[in-house]
Amino acid sequence: MRAVDIIVAKREGRELSREEISFLISGFVAGSIPDYQVSAWAMAVFFRGMSPGETAALTEVMLNSGERMDLSGIGGPLVDKHSTGGVGDKTSLILAPLAASLGLRDPMMSGRALGHTGGTLDKLDSIPGYRTSLSPAEFREIVARDGFAMTGQTKDTVPADRLLYALRDVTGTVESIPLITASILSKKKAEGTEALVLDVKYGAGAFMKDPADAEKLARSLINTGAALGLKIIALLTNMNQPLGSMVGNFLEVEECYACLDPALYGDAALGLSADLMELSLELTARMLMLGDKAGSPEEGRRLCLEALKSGRPRELFLRNIESQGGDRGRFLAMLGNYRSPHRSEIFAREDGYIFRIDAWKLGHAGIGLGVGRNRSEDPVSPQAGVQFHKKAGAPVRRGDLLMTVWGKDREGLKAAVPLIEQAVEYSAAKPLPEQLVMKEIRHG
Amino acid sequence: MRAVDIIVAKREGRELSREEISFLISGFVAGSIPDYQVSAWAMAVFFRGMSPGETAALTEVMLNSGERMDLSGIGGPLVDKHSTGGVGDKTSLILAPLAASLGLRDPMMSGRALGHTGGTLDKLDSIPGYRTSLSPAEFREIVARDGFAMTGQTKDTVPADRLLYALRDVTGTVESIPLITASILSKKKAEGTEALVLDVKYGAGAFMKDPADAEKLARSLINTGAALGLKIIALLTNMNQPLGSMVGNFLEVEECYACLDPALYGDAALGLSADLMELSLELTARMLMLGDKAGSPEEGRRLCLEALKSGRPRELFLRNIESQGGDRGRFLAMLGNYRSPHRSEIFAREDGYIFRIDAWKLGHAGIGLGVGRNRSEDPVSPQAGVQFHKKAGAPVRRGDLLMTVWGKDREGLKAAVPLIEQAVEYSAAKPLPEQLVMKEIRHG
Repeated sequence: MRAVDIIVAKREGRELSREEISFLISGFVAGSIPDYQVSAWAMAVFFRGMSPGETAALTEVMLNSGERMDLSGIGGPLVDKHSTGGVGDKTSLILAPLAASLGLRDPMMSGRALGHTGGTLDKLDSIPGYRTSLSPAEFREIVARDGFAMTGQTKDTVPADRLLYALRDVTGTVESIPLITASILSKKKAEGTEALVLDVKYGAGAFMKDPADAEKLARSLINTGAALGLKIIALLTNMNQPLGSMVGNFLEVEECYACLDPALYGDAALGLSADLMELSLELTARMLMLGDKAGSPEEGRRLCLEALKSGRPRELFLRNIESQGGDRGRFLAMLGNYRSPHRSEIFAREDGYIFRIDAWKLGHAGIGLGVGRNRSEDPVSPQAGVQFHKKAGAPVRRGDLLMTVWGKDREGLKAAVPLIEQAVEYSAAKPLPEQLVMKEIRHG
Repeated sequence: MRAVDIIVAKREGRELSREEISFLISGFVAGSIPDYQVSAWAMAVFFRGMSPGETAALTEVMLNSGERMDLSGIGGPLVDKHSTGGVGDKTSLILAPLAASLGLRDPMMSGRALGHTGGTLDKLDSIPGYRTSLSPAEFREIVARDGFAMTGQTKDTVPADRLLYALRDVTGTVESIPLITASILSKKKAEGTEALVLDVKYGAGAFMKDPADAEKLARSLINTGAALGLKIIALLTNMNQPLGSMVGNFLEVEECYACLDPALYGDAALGLSADLMELSLELTARMLMLGDKAGSPEEGRRLCLEALKSGRPRELFLRNIESQGGDRGRFLAMLGNYRSPHRSEIFAREDGYIFRIDAWKLGHAGIGLGVGRNRSEDPVSPQAGVQFHKKAGAPVRRGDLLMTVWGKDREGLKAAVPLIEQAVEYSAAKPLPEQLVMKEIRHG
């Protein structure tokens, strides 16, 4: 078998065998197939696509390149969620303790911020002492005891994906649905989950701008996931505007903790976190269905609201901080005041309505603030971010306070403010509210 | 400027600017742009193609990566020929002295055998003492004095092409018309020619099997060549069957020398070399037209036949051997007997007619004999090859002698003989002769 023949076969649109895919990917990981052949192959895949069988084979070959978590016998259905990434997208920190409080086990392996999108691990790292690099034994133990754990990938977690993604990132081959599918599902299978709810985002701040592209990705994930034995559901969700009231690292942890306040499920109001909670409930309801804890989304939502009212999810959130080495007391003391001293405010520049806060523009401005990063080796700031005081649909008058902004330093803040101002779109008439969940997609 | 943005632009079908092409290719040659980005870009070019402007820009950028021969002021129109490669394709050794005898100057920079196709330099290397690595000064001097010289590319001749071709060869990106165009024309411009006749082959033994593909390549070469200021004509020619009566290294030199015998242009018969001479005449006639020595192909052919009859081309052939360090006396003494001792014969296996000797199959069998090579670093044998005693259209009876075969060693010979037998196709009825030159293509 020769790599060049496999490249030419894919270039000519022929279906590759599992053996050919394994030869190429295993050889790449082992160093016997050079990156220049793999990048040419990836570009051919971009143009020619992959059949469902090829995509499943690629996912399995990648999965087999590394170690898999063994979560057998820990009790409770293993159900996780994966999001394709957004701005202010922090549902993981809400739904993991919520799902755990309802008897699910969520073995959550997450990633870091890159480009305009945030990363769960960077958010958690803002909690003093919190460890996001658990050993497999710790991960298993915490999932078993608390119902969920949050960790990052190690170098032994799907090394094929780590190497292939780094190559795709610099060779214009990221935007390939089968390659994205294999990347996501190989990591989710490796973390040991049995079921998966996908939050596939579309819109300005999403990887896929067009809902039709997002749906293609969702269907590829559903079909391949099912072929690999995962119970799986996808929601297509709107990512035109940042989710919730905060974008940042500690700021987002804080918002999630606030959303778990039982008072909100009695008389208090969710305010600007309403969209975040709405999405979290929709996702958790599907997780409960996949874990056979609810027969319908409606039943799932009802169970979620009952659980939130009980305060158990918030208690599990705090217990997880302790389980992963964080300081509960210090965390609670930081709420509302762990902010960078480099602070600015954004005011409305027009009368009328906020039409939209562009998630892509705001996410990019956030890189300069220190919320995100352009390159995976860049540091982020725990204290930087944006708090919204108004979002789409709100009436405004010129000069109204729209956002408070914290930057990692003076220069970053100064450069980001005009970019953030540009992210605000105004309209004379009140805009129609956008639908948050466009569609649910199941297998078959 | 970032390489990944250039790759994505091409992937999305956008036209690249000269600056972008230069950034990528110059960076590749300088080592600042890694091969894995260039191979992904080349695959995107395979799928998206290049505009005429992009192809011309790529050719110029590649040309400017190395040194160009300075042949200014040496007198006589500078006219060369380039063939896309075939089996038994040895027209260069005939047409260069023929064109020189008629007042043209042919600065011929050639290549080596690869895969099933032969290479002019390997053929010339079979002449004792003959040097195919001339310095620029020697090259200029010999072209000026003898009317032609034959040399190989040095490491300073279009290094961008050398590096890019080596990468394309192993990444499934050879078969791209704009990349082929830039590769051919950058080298031809670098050798210093002012005009170029292209022999673009189609058929079993050609790089392009389909005449329509060959025509696309020819048109790309014509348009790009004209944009670069070359006077240029292409012939689309048939490469289903090996050209002439010999395939080999010294064997082909010998056949060319024999074809320059003045007696053949009086009463003697060309025999199985008729197709080779026919193509050589058609090509040289176009060279004469581009060099303003003939007003029509017919006039060009007439001039060629007169010259051949005079014996001047044969004398120039021998003078070139001496000019390039070869031993004329030893060369003449080797004619008819410089053959490997490992010899076999191929006999007809059926009654009827030879329908065709498949050039691709025969060329591939030739690799095992030692005529050609699979990898550019492999050696070839000067003494190996095949002599045909019958070709397409000849009536045969089972057991008739079809070919004499010489192999570099016993094992190579033994393995090649059944492959050569498989290259012979028989028919019950006499096959119609195939047209040798299908079409002439000029600019505009």
